[in-house]
Amino acid sequence: MKSAYYAGNQQFELKQANPEPVGPGMVRIKVAFCGICGTDVHIYHGKMDHRVQLPQVIGHEVSGEIDEIGEGVSGWHTGDRVVVRPLQPGADDPSDNGQRHIGKNLKFIGIDTPGGMQPYWNVPAYTLHKLPENMPLQLGALIEPLAVACHDVRLSRLQPGEHAVIIGGGPIGILIALVARHAGANVLLSEPNPYRLALCESLGISTVDPASADLVQEVETFTKGAMADVVFEVSGVMAGVEAMTRLARARGRLIMVAIHSAPRPVDLFRFFWRELQLIGTRVYEPEDFDTAIALAASDSLPLAGLITQVAPLESVQELFETIDRNPAGMKYMLQCTDG
Amino acid sequence: MKSAYYAGNQQFELKQANPEPVGPGMVRIKVAFCGICGTDVHIYHGKMDHRVQLPQVIGHEVSGEIDEIGEGVSGWHTGDRVVVRPLQPGADDPSDNGQRHIGKNLKFIGIDTPGGMQPYWNVPAYTLHKLPENMPLQLGALIEPLAVACHDVRLSRLQPGEHAVIIGGGPIGILIALVARHAGANVLLSEPNPYRLALCESLGISTVDPASADLVQEVETFTKGAMADVVFEVSGVMAGVEAMTRLARARGRLIMVAIHSAPRPVDLFRFFWRELQLIGTRVYEPEDFDTAIALAASDSLPLAGLITQVAPLESVQELFETIDRNPAGMKYMLQCTDG
Repeated sequence: MKSAYYAGNQQFELKQANPEPVGPGMVRIKVAFCGICGTDVHIYHGKMDHRVQLPQVIGHEVSGEIDEIGEGVSGWHTGDRVVVRPLQPGADDPSDNGQRHIGKNLKFIGIDTPGGMQPYWNVPAYTLHKLPENMPLQLGALIEPLAVACHDVRLSRLQPGEHAVIIGGGPIGILIALVARHAGANVLLSEPNPYRLALCESLGISTVDPASADLVQEVETFTKGAMADVVFEVSGVMAGVEAMTRLARARGRLIMVAIHSAPRPVDLFRFFWRELQLIGTRVYEPEDFDTAIALAASDSLPLAGLITQVAPLESVQELFETIDRNPAGMKYMLQCTDG
Repeated sequence: MKSAYYAGNQQFELKQANPEPVGPGMVRIKVAFCGICGTDVHIYHGKMDHRVQLPQVIGHEVSGEIDEIGEGVSGWHTGDRVVVRPLQPGADDPSDNGQRHIGKNLKFIGIDTPGGMQPYWNVPAYTLHKLPENMPLQLGALIEPLAVACHDVRLSRLQPGEHAVIIGGGPIGILIALVARHAGANVLLSEPNPYRLALCESLGISTVDPASADLVQEVETFTKGAMADVVFEVSGVMAGVEAMTRLARARGRLIMVAIHSAPRPVDLFRFFWRELQLIGTRVYEPEDFDTAIALAASDSLPLAGLITQVAPLESVQELFETIDRNPAGMKYMLQCTDG
């Protein structure tokens, strides 16, 4: 069995996997599936070499079974089916305001420390959430991004009957659309890629292509002039930032999900004029994992439809090259053990 | 007696004042004082000629006494001492979300319709708030800007013991500082003008000069590393927008009070990374006037210290020229009748 190490410069190396001894408070997981996140693709492109220690196993969207339990760990059993909440809080900083999931000294497991693209993975026991017995482990590997969506929707304070517009139809945008719809919102998703649009429509999500239609007018029609109660900016591009302030009604909430690496021109006058709110959201808290698992278990979201391809761990290099050639693809996964 | 008409091109014209008949639902006020707002100065500079119908009486920070009452108006008596909430809501628009104080068809009295720089002023009865018998009418003319500050602090959800940083020490910034301090916050105000800094210090407000000190470091020291729970951006300049995202702790609230007429580069990554919130605030709701009047009546804010100069209505032209020459001045007022 092999582990996949990101070695810099768009290269992965496969190395013999040697299960490590399990320290106190830790648990060894036999990894079933590891989903590929946009951040992993970012790492592959060399954009995060300042955080990743090369060569390093990456990956953080993991499902698996407990293989061994370290000293002092209680409440868990070998064979438990689990997912990992990949956050390792550091020392509290006064500026953290008690928000440990985004603390100044937080380490993100799979970026700042080794990740899940390996057959056996040691993680702190406190990162685990239990999966129901009957949940397929492929679905389990979607829990982490689904928890992101649950966090975003929760922090948006979305109410049933409200109008939500999602700008950007990648995996997180679509998951937000599904969670928001399940919460009772009327959902419209804006995305220019025709393949992603077709996928959304196949999942029953109303869409608009902002390249061929006037987005503001479409939202006006969709909301009968009321405009959006909540706008999720998930695109990460300038056009998304320009659009978001024009789509919201008075006191509308704009949810900043995307990572904008450079400052963007924002229409602050519009914030003043219509008393808009912008709410930044990042990762998740434990309750978001609980919500995500319950949602997935209830079978009320068409999650399986998001999986584009599952490949064996050994073909990691080929899979990342495939992702680069297919910007319309959705969720790719590595199978890390035979299961 | 004369009324002051803004005639365009930085010119006021004085014309004979002829009290107009009072229509149904209206009230005629004998104006005592009319404060000069930054918006009035903006109008004087010709920046709002698209909204003002020249020549027009402007001004909206008014105190006075009821002179005559129109048909169908109840609950008011001649001689009542009042202030005016200068908002005239128009037809509801679905995108208003029930927020009539910022509705799409709102008219701002004194900008979109004639204002208070005249001895007698007819306004809708629903705009009136009663002043206590013993409140000096000069203080009454500060109620409108004080209500802005009360609205800003209310929407910031400020809690006692929290740290609030105010960027910008003009009249609104200082009023926010006073209201926030009265609400139990620890307040620090950032302002580069030495005269304004000295005024703040004389009012017991802690200050920092961002031109000579490192603002982030000063806030760190002031908050013992916790950083600000709430940041009020009242400066309207680029440096204020650049600073605001760096001064807040995790989940800190940034209150957009200032008018930024052009889009500004905003560090959206920081909103994501620290789950910051931006809250736009504009004008006031009726309860903010009630709060402002109660606060002023309680004599717990050093409001009189904000009045730089009171001049007779006839010298309106000279007063605006004085304001232009004295950017460090605070609140200027016109006395519109002999009282």
